[in-house]
Parts: sequence; C-alpha cells; structure tokens
Amino acid sequence: MLKAFNFNEIIGGINVLKPLGDRVILQAAEEEEQTVGGIVLASNAQEKPTTGKVISVGEGRVLDNGTKVAPSVKEGDTVMFDKYAGTAVSYEGNDYLVLHEKDIVAVVD
Amino acid sequence: MLKAFNFNEIIGGINVLKPLGDRVILQAAEEEEQTVGGIVLASNAQEKPTTGKVISVGEGRVLDNGTKVAPSVKEGDTVMFDKYAGTAVSYEGNDYLVLHEKDIVAVVD
Amino acid sequence: MLKAFNFNEIIGGINVLKPLGDRVILQAAEEEEQTVGGIVLASNAQEKPTTGKVISVGEGRVLDNGTKVAPSVKEGDTVMFDKYAGTAVSYEGNDYLVLHEKDIVAVVD
Amino acid sequence: MLKAFNFNEIIGGINVLKPLGDRVILQAAEEEEQTVGGIVLASNAQEKPTTGKVISVGEGRVLDNGTKVAPSVKEGDTVMFDKYAGTAVSYEGNDYLVLHEKDIVAVVD
Amino acid sequence: MLKAFNFNEIIGGINVLKPLGDRVILQAAEEEEQTVGGIVLASNAQEKPTTGKVISVGEGRVLDNGTKVAPSVKEGDTVMFDKYAGTAVSYEGNDYLVLHEKDIVAVVD
Amino acid sequence: MLKAFNFNEIIGGINVLKPLGDRVILQAAEEEEQTVGGIVLASNAQEKPTTGKVISVGEGRVLDNGTKVAPSVKEGDTVMFDKYAGTAVSYEGNDYLVLHEKDIVAVVD
Amino acid sequence: MLKAFNFNEIIGGINVLKPLGDRVILQAAEEEEQTVGGIVLASNAQEKPTTGKVISVGEGRVLDNGTKVAPSVKEGDTVMFDKYAGTAVSYEGNDYLVLHEKDIVAVVD
Repeated sequence: MLKAFNFNEIIGGINVLKPLGDRVILQAAEEEEQTVGGIVLASNAQEKPTTGKVISVGEGRVLDNGTKVAPSVKEGDTVMFDKYAGTAVSYEGNDYLVLHEKDIVAVVD
Repeated sequence: MLKAFNFNEIIGGINVLKPLGDRVILQAAEEEEQTVGGIVLASNAQEKPTTGKVISVGEGRVLDNGTKVAPSVKEGDTVMFDKYAGTAVSYEGNDYLVLHEKDIVAVVD
Repeated sequence: MLKAFNFNEIIGGINVLKPLGDRVILQAAEEEEQTVGGIVLASNAQEKPTTGKVISVGEGRVLDNGTKVAPSVKEGDTVMFDKYAGTAVSYEGNDYLVLHEKDIVAVVD
Repeated sequence: MLKAFNFNEIIGGINVLKPLGDRVILQAAEEEEQTVGGIVLASNAQEKPTTGKVISVGEGRVLDNGTKVAPSVKEGDTVMFDKYAGTAVSYEGNDYLVLHEKDIVAVVD
Repeated sequence: MLKAFNFNEIIGGINVLKPLGDRVILQAAEEEEQTVGGIVLASNAQEKPTTGKVISVGEGRVLDNGTKVAPSVKEGDTVMFDKYAGTAVSYEGNDYLVLHEKDIVAVVD
Repeated sequence: MLKAFNFNEIIGGINVLKPLGDRVILQAAEEEEQTVGGIVLASNAQEKPTTGKVISVGEGRVLDNGTKVAPSVKEGDTVMFDKYAGTAVSYEGNDYLVLHEKDIVAVVD
Repeated sequence: MLKAFNFNEIIGGINVLKPLGDRVILQAAEEEEQTVGGIVLASNAQEKPTTGKVISVGEGRVLDNGTKVAPSVKEGDTVMFDKYAGTAVSYEGNDYLVLHEKDIVAVVD
C-alpha cells in the first residue's frame, strides 16, 4: 500500500515551476499609482492588473501533424494578458499566474 | 525567493506594444459629428465607434500544418471592426483595443 | 505619445470598403410593393429585406492547408441572405451589411 | 455616392435561384389528406410537411484539403428533411425552403 | 412560375427511402412482454424501445480527406440505439426512425 | 407494405452484443462491502459502481485520415470508468453499460 | 447467460492502475500548514490541494494523423493541476485523482 504523500518532503531548496504545453507562468505586476503628465492618479480599484513578467514558458502546443509550436514569448518578457484568464498558483510564498499563450494579448517590447 | 515585481521599473522610455498571434492593436476613432450633404448631425450616442487605425499587427496565426498566415491588415490601415469585439488596453496614458484579425470586418482602402 | 486619431482626416475623397477574409459587403434592397399577377400587395412589415446587391468581396477564407478559397459570389451579384446575419456598417451616408459568405443563401442568377 | 439600389429593376424575366455551397432549394409538398387502405385520414395539423422536391442544388461544400464534395441529391429528387431546418425564401410569388444538405434525411427513390 | 407541387403524384407504387450520408433507417421493435426464466413480466411503460431492424443505410460520411467511410451496419441487422436519438419518419403508413450511425450503440449479432 | 417487425423472432439462442466504433460493453461490478485492514465497512450508498469487466469491444474509431484506431482495452479487462458515463442496455436478462472508450479512465492491470 | 460479476474475485494481490490515453494518475498532496518567514499560517480551508505526485501515466493521445503523443510528465513528477479537474478514484484504500494531461498546469522540477 502506498504511503500518504507529503508535499513538503519533496519540494525544498531551489525548485522551478515548469509549465506544460502552451502555458506560460507570469508574475503579475503590482498595482501602482498611475501618473499622467506628473499628476498622480489613484489606481482604479475595479481594474485588476493585466500586466506581468514571464517567469517560465512551456515547450509549446503540439499541432495535429505532431510538430510542436514554440511559444512566441520568452522568459523575462513583459506581457499584457486577458483579465480573468489563467489559474492562480501559490509557490514558496509567491503568487503566480499560469496562462495559456493564447491568453497573452501583447508583449511590451 | 523572487522579489515582488514592479512594472514601472521595466516599462519606460519609448516602448511598443506587440500583439501576439493573429491579434491587431487599434486606436479607436474619436466619435465626431457626422455630416450628410453639409448638414451636421449629432452623433448617435448609442453607437460606439467601430472604426480605428491599426497601430501594430501580430505575426499571424499558425495553421494546423505549422505554417503562419500573415495578417491581411497592416500598420496604418483604417479598419472597421465588430462592435463589442476585442480587449481594451491602457498603455502610457492612451487607450487601445486589441482585436483578433477575424473581428476586423473591412479595410477602408 | 501618440496623438488622438481623427477619423475624418483620414477618409476623404473616393474610398472603398474592402471586406476581410470570407466576408462580403452588400447593399440591402429597399422594401417595395410586391405584385402578383398585377395586383399590388403591401409589403409585409414583419419581414426584413433579405435580398441585396454585392458591393465588394473579400479574398476568401484560408483553409487549414494554407490555400485560399475564392468566394463564390462576385461584385454585382444579387443575393439572398439569412435574416439577422451580418453586421450593419454605415459609410459615407450609406448603410451596408457585411456578411460572411456562409450566410449568403442563394444567388439570383 | 452610391445610388439607392432597387431590387425590382434587377430581377425580372426568368431568373433562377442558385443556392450556395452545400445548400439545396426545395419546394415543400402541400399537405394532403392521407389514405391508408382507401380510408381518408385528415392530415395531422400538428405535423408540418417534411417532404419536398429539389428545385436547385449548390456546388457542394469545400473540404479542409480544398476539394469540393458534390451534393448527393439532384434536381427533381423528392426528399425528406428535418422539421424546423432551413430558411424560408419567397421568390416570384412562390415559397421555397433553403436547406443545408446535412438536413436532408432521406431521398424517396 | 412554378406550379404548386403535389407530393402524391410523385410517390406511388413501390418506393424506397434512401438515407443520406451516415444515416440509417430503422424499424423500431414492438414493445413486448419480457420473459425471464419463463415468467412473463409486463413491459416497463417508461422505457421506450431501443432496438430496431436496419431497413436501409446511407453511403457513409465523407472524411476531411475526401474519402467515404462505409457504414458498419447493413440492411437486416438488429441494432440497439440511444433512446431519444433520431428523427421519426412516416412513410406509406409505417413509422421509421432515421438515425446517424454514431447513435447506434451495438449490433445484436 | 412492410410487416410490423417482431424483435423476439429475431434474437434467440446465443447472441452477442457487438458495440459500434469506439464503444465498449461492460458488466458493472456489484457493490460489495469494502474492507480496510480487516474491518468491514458498509458500502457508501451515494457512490455508484465505477468498476466493470469488459465484455466486448468495438473496432475502434476512424481518424480523419481514414485509419482505424484499435481500442486500448480488450475483452476481460477490469476497468474504471467515469460515473454517469455510458448508456445502460438490458439484454437477455442482464444489464450492461455501453461506453465510449474515452470514458474509460484506467485499466486495473 | 453470463454470471453476475464479482469485482473482489478479480482484483487481489498487487495490482496497478493503468490510465488510458492522455490520462495521468496522481496522489494529491496532504494539506499542510504553510510557513512564510518562519510564521506558521493555518491552511486556508477554502483552497483544495492542487499539488500531487504522478503515480502512473497513460500512453498518450492519438493525433488525427494516427501517431501517439507521449505525455510530458512521468512517474514520480510533482505537478500542479487545475482545481476541480479530474475524477476521484478509490483503489485499495487509497484515493487517487485521474486527470487529463491538459489539466496539469506545471511540473515542480
């Protein structure tokens, strides 16, 4: 019989989260005060952050003919993504967002 | 442990928004008074602008056989798009609309 | 920073609307009195016009193997289309309807 | 500026309705009294006619590999079709039904 | 102008119903008393018959590569099918059921 | 005119149920008392059996390129399946479950 | 007539669960107290465990061209998965979760 599995024994030290398929792991940007022409505007509480930094990318999705399509974003990219898309993931005290690449709207080059 | 990520440190200076896949970034036209035969008509408040100028285009969508289809609009094109389509994006004080190419109805040539 | 974009400065003179992909631009027929055997019948107010004249056609849709399928209607064709299909578009004081080719039911040859 | 388009000027004389793609144009059968062994039965008012005669057929649908599949019914065939399928079309005083071939259930050979 | 079409003039004598595509025409089994070990059980009124005899089969569905897949049932087979599947069709005083082959669950060999 | 069809005349003697396509016929396991470390636990009435024995398998599904994929379970396998999946079928006094192969979760090897 | 089938006679001794297709069998991690900077936080009762250890993987899904895509996780991997995804399975006194590979979000490398 298999012993009950203890997650803490397994992850420890420096681990990395590796997303599967066409997924991308992001660290969402902190909401900040926005400035327009030097005037500080209070951030709009109703708008959730939709910008983030790419932490890790998957190997890409598999096409019907069996080839893999490499993701078009890379580690370190700053991206905009669809509000409400993705799965929140908590890992070693930080919060990340795992998105499918299709939910990334644009790269801030 | 990863430090909290500050968006403002990263974007600064002259950045460009690069849409992903078959997406297109538009700047919606300002609603104006319409004239028919010289007579000024008040704009219909119920109709949202459905015309815009293409600011940036993605590399196109990937077909099932692995080839990319280049978008059929280009930077600078004036286009009409489906009302209610797309995602509003705010960037450096300007508002943009990110659309999938399929939501662009026609090009004003 | 990008200047606010003024649509009126851009379109002017003789422009054409060019539909994208498998789209077709139609000018809907005016509702008229119908005659059967010389007797004039009042048009049925509940039936919206479903006949139109093709003004412009797109380049066709792209198949999964990358080839384009040319539309099977052409400029000048009179067509019948699904009621409720399409997007109304207003351009230089005229109203048009932009439809996907699949919403065109038949050509009146 | 484009002139308003008058449908009556365009169709006149002997025109034919040509369905697009995998569509078929039918003339629905008139509901009649049904006879079983010589006894006349009143037609069931709740059942709409589901039999018709093929007036015209489209060129067939385009497969993903670009080839056309010719329709499996032909002009003059008597067919049964799914109740509620299709679009009613009125043309020169007659009522027709435009169906996708997939909504034709069987041919009465 | 096309004359009104009279269905009775067209079908007469010995006709056959030919299903289209991947369709199969069945004659549903009459509900009977069920016997288990010689004891007659009243049929369960809540269960509709799900067994039938194949009367006629279509030529099969067309794959995306253009080839036809011959149906895996044949005339005369006794089959079980999904309750609620199919379209009831009345023809020359008999009731039939037209099903897509995918709604046939098993053949009673 | 076709005679009314009597199911009992046709099936008789030793018949087999042959599932179509990617279907599998199972005999669901009887719910039993569960024992953990020798202690008998009453079965949980809210959990329906999700284990069964494969009685018969279809020839497999047809891919878009026309080839058949043989099922990955075989007669005699003990399998676990999605609760609520499948169609209950009664045949010669026994109850079976007809499932699509995709609804089989695991094989107990 | 087939005898009623008794599941306990069949599974006994050391059996393995073998998932089908693109499925993966996981043992979910036990919820533990989380520590941030040495301070023990009570686990959030509203968050269900979303981390697990891969016990067994299927042979992978079959593409439309007939080839199999090997899963990108392997036995022993620690993975994060979509909350609410998968089917709970009880086997020899242990609880497992059977997931489609697409519901695995990331591997903790």
